[in-house]
Amino acid sequence: MAELFKALTVEEARVAVARYLPGKRPGVRLPLLESLGRRLAADVRAPEDVPGFDRSTVDGYAVRARDTYGATEGLPSYLDVAGEVLMGREPEGTVSPGQAWRIATGGMLPPGADAVVMLEYTEELDCRTIGVTRPVAPGENVIRKGEDIAAGEIALPAGHRIRPQDMGMLSSVGVSEVEVELPVRVGIISTGDELVSPGERPVPGQVRDINSYTLYGAVAACGGEPRLYGIVGDDYEKLKRTLELALSENDMVLLSGGSSVGTRDVAALAIDSAGEPGVLFHGISVKPGKPTIGAVVNGKPVFGLPGHPASAMVVFELMVAPLVRSGGYAAGEKEMREALTAFPLRAVLTRSLHSAAGREDFIRVRLHCKDGRLFAEPVLGKSGLISTMVKADGLARIPPGKEGVEAGEIVEVKLF
Amino acid sequence: MAELFKALTVEEARVAVARYLPGKRPGVRLPLLESLGRRLAADVRAPEDVPGFDRSTVDGYAVRARDTYGATEGLPSYLDVAGEVLMGREPEGTVSPGQAWRIATGGMLPPGADAVVMLEYTEELDCRTIGVTRPVAPGENVIRKGEDIAAGEIALPAGHRIRPQDMGMLSSVGVSEVEVELPVRVGIISTGDELVSPGERPVPGQVRDINSYTLYGAVAACGGEPRLYGIVGDDYEKLKRTLELALSENDMVLLSGGSSVGTRDVAALAIDSAGEPGVLFHGISVKPGKPTIGAVVNGKPVFGLPGHPASAMVVFELMVAPLVRSGGYAAGEKEMREALTAFPLRAVLTRSLHSAAGREDFIRVRLHCKDGRLFAEPVLGKSGLISTMVKADGLARIPPGKEGVEAGEIVEVKLF
Repeated sequence: MAELFKALTVEEARVAVARYLPGKRPGVRLPLLESLGRRLAADVRAPEDVPGFDRSTVDGYAVRARDTYGATEGLPSYLDVAGEVLMGREPEGTVSPGQAWRIATGGMLPPGADAVVMLEYTEELDCRTIGVTRPVAPGENVIRKGEDIAAGEIALPAGHRIRPQDMGMLSSVGVSEVEVELPVRVGIISTGDELVSPGERPVPGQVRDINSYTLYGAVAACGGEPRLYGIVGDDYEKLKRTLELALSENDMVLLSGGSSVGTRDVAALAIDSAGEPGVLFHGISVKPGKPTIGAVVNGKPVFGLPGHPASAMVVFELMVAPLVRSGGYAAGEKEMREALTAFPLRAVLTRSLHSAAGREDFIRVRLHCKDGRLFAEPVLGKSGLISTMVKADGLARIPPGKEGVEAGEIVEVKLF
Repeated sequence: MAELFKALTVEEARVAVARYLPGKRPGVRLPLLESLGRRLAADVRAPEDVPGFDRSTVDGYAVRARDTYGATEGLPSYLDVAGEVLMGREPEGTVSPGQAWRIATGGMLPPGADAVVMLEYTEELDCRTIGVTRPVAPGENVIRKGEDIAAGEIALPAGHRIRPQDMGMLSSVGVSEVEVELPVRVGIISTGDELVSPGERPVPGQVRDINSYTLYGAVAACGGEPRLYGIVGDDYEKLKRTLELALSENDMVLLSGGSSVGTRDVAALAIDSAGEPGVLFHGISVKPGKPTIGAVVNGKPVFGLPGHPASAMVVFELMVAPLVRSGGYAAGEKEMREALTAFPLRAVLTRSLHSAAGREDFIRVRLHCKDGRLFAEPVLGKSGLISTMVKADGLARIPPGKEGVEAGEIVEVKLF
């Protein structure tokens, strides 16, 4: 047991877990159309230039730019219309001095031409002659061969998460299959003698399991692959067996419940018995979410999340979600940017709230608009109430340095 | 043809399309675990109270609050320990005046008790007697029967998009199957004689289709069900047949490409021939994205998106994404909030940019951090370059009222 006895900040807790995690995840080949949201397991290089030739970006006439120098509406440059570029075809011929070819957006520039004059700046004198009323510079209204992507360039780097535009980029270089990382598999165990599954009818004293379902959704929303291992009572042997099974079938395990002291001790013992280094910390300085256990077992993170549904979700967002999204590793600048953009909204708090200095507080808030401004109304209620999370639109953060926020102050908000 | 000849603002264009759309989408029953991100097709009512009994939120002793009034560390209230609440069981007995029962977090309050004293504020004198060192009020450290959700209450309303916490809420009321709306099916057609699919080798003059793949990803990212109808050349009859097929199999159709004047005219004609009211507008006042066609055909939206990849994506984000996410209808306050939170980040622009008044400009930007501040660096480059969208982290918006933004000014940014 490498446990630290002081409650860690979220950042310290993240670092404590990260140093025991492996750097790289296994990959699998997928058709391009199934790759959205997945992380590239290897760099993708462009095998060829995109586009493969100089293309027009407008409808107009392909010309030699110098033939248009000095052209004005009063004194147009007159050019012979010597041909027309057909879409998807290589032009048969060359633009000679004094000539112009008709060309549409996306058409291939004929040899000799180095710019395109927009239709708007030409006048047709007869079917063989145009007047150009404004000069163009070389390269104007043209996408040059290889300007979008040059052959051999890294089109997308390993670790990049595929967005819609990346699918377009991959298509443009002729990649119809990509190697992506396997999603992080997350085993989920609920603990507590009082829990029954949603299909069962609770008798007095029993309640239905909430956290398994909240965490299942949260893992899936981060691109992970959740798997439920059901409910385990306060039974050390059964918890140990279930945890070992979940660890053998997943990359990460989440335990929840066990907010009573006895149950938490059983969970910590079961985690420690499963492998090295075991429990790393027991308690983080956030509210809600303080009684969180963080551990790594043989390279796999294990978290003991609080039993209260709102607390479990807050800790998931802060500690678990970044690991599920990144597979466990992320670079410096990217991580910094993520931290800065994690609570992107700014809203006016509608009532004053207290907070203890040295602790990060997360307040469930409901947003509303008035006169084009965004207001955050705290959703009051115990962290054991799932309805507070359902009524809320997001979380507002009170940084550890502050002892409270006054009504009317601006707070940082994250939607969920 | 109900076409308007003036370029509309994005808001006007949205309204023009929305008035022809049906209000409701068909539903389907799904297991709870598969419901993430789907929209509820009907209200879900709680069939019973959650919790079904008064529960403790802490580890401690269940008491009658009045027995603790006036208790201090110097003068504790002494109570007889008369029993222990077992987790998941109904307590066998009653808390009489002067008595306390041991209880753990989540335990059921025995009859007679109306509050719980935290373990921290008690001292054990012998195994039958405790001293309470701080008074509790009735209801303190207790979640009352029905406090989370009351029987008969609407737990989640129709139209609500299911988040992880909503799955937890549904589980808590015993709902293991939900009726959700079918996702919006979106047919995607690329037009242009110069396009080939990513598996083909382009000859000079040809390029691979980018927009089909970008749009496929973008529709999927919004929770829609995309379907590709391939590439159609500048052929009115073939486009008309493909459009009619796509309309018959989907709830919405996106055409892209055809940014050359002739192709756009062919697209507009094919859309108009497919049904009523047909093309509604031809051009919106945004950059990039001006040459956008908006139409509704027999209750189904059809958009002719620009051919340039960056332009097509910007218009998708502004016009199409809200329709795919909402299925076509959204309420006032919610829509307002969405608009205010659509460009949630604030970043410092690193270089001055021009803009025409009366037009909304969207600038691709790359974000970076310095000294804890977020900076937006414009990604310059033609809107025909997919690489500009790949290099960018998001879009910055320049509102229609402004004629430009100076370096150092704050801009609103949306990640993509």
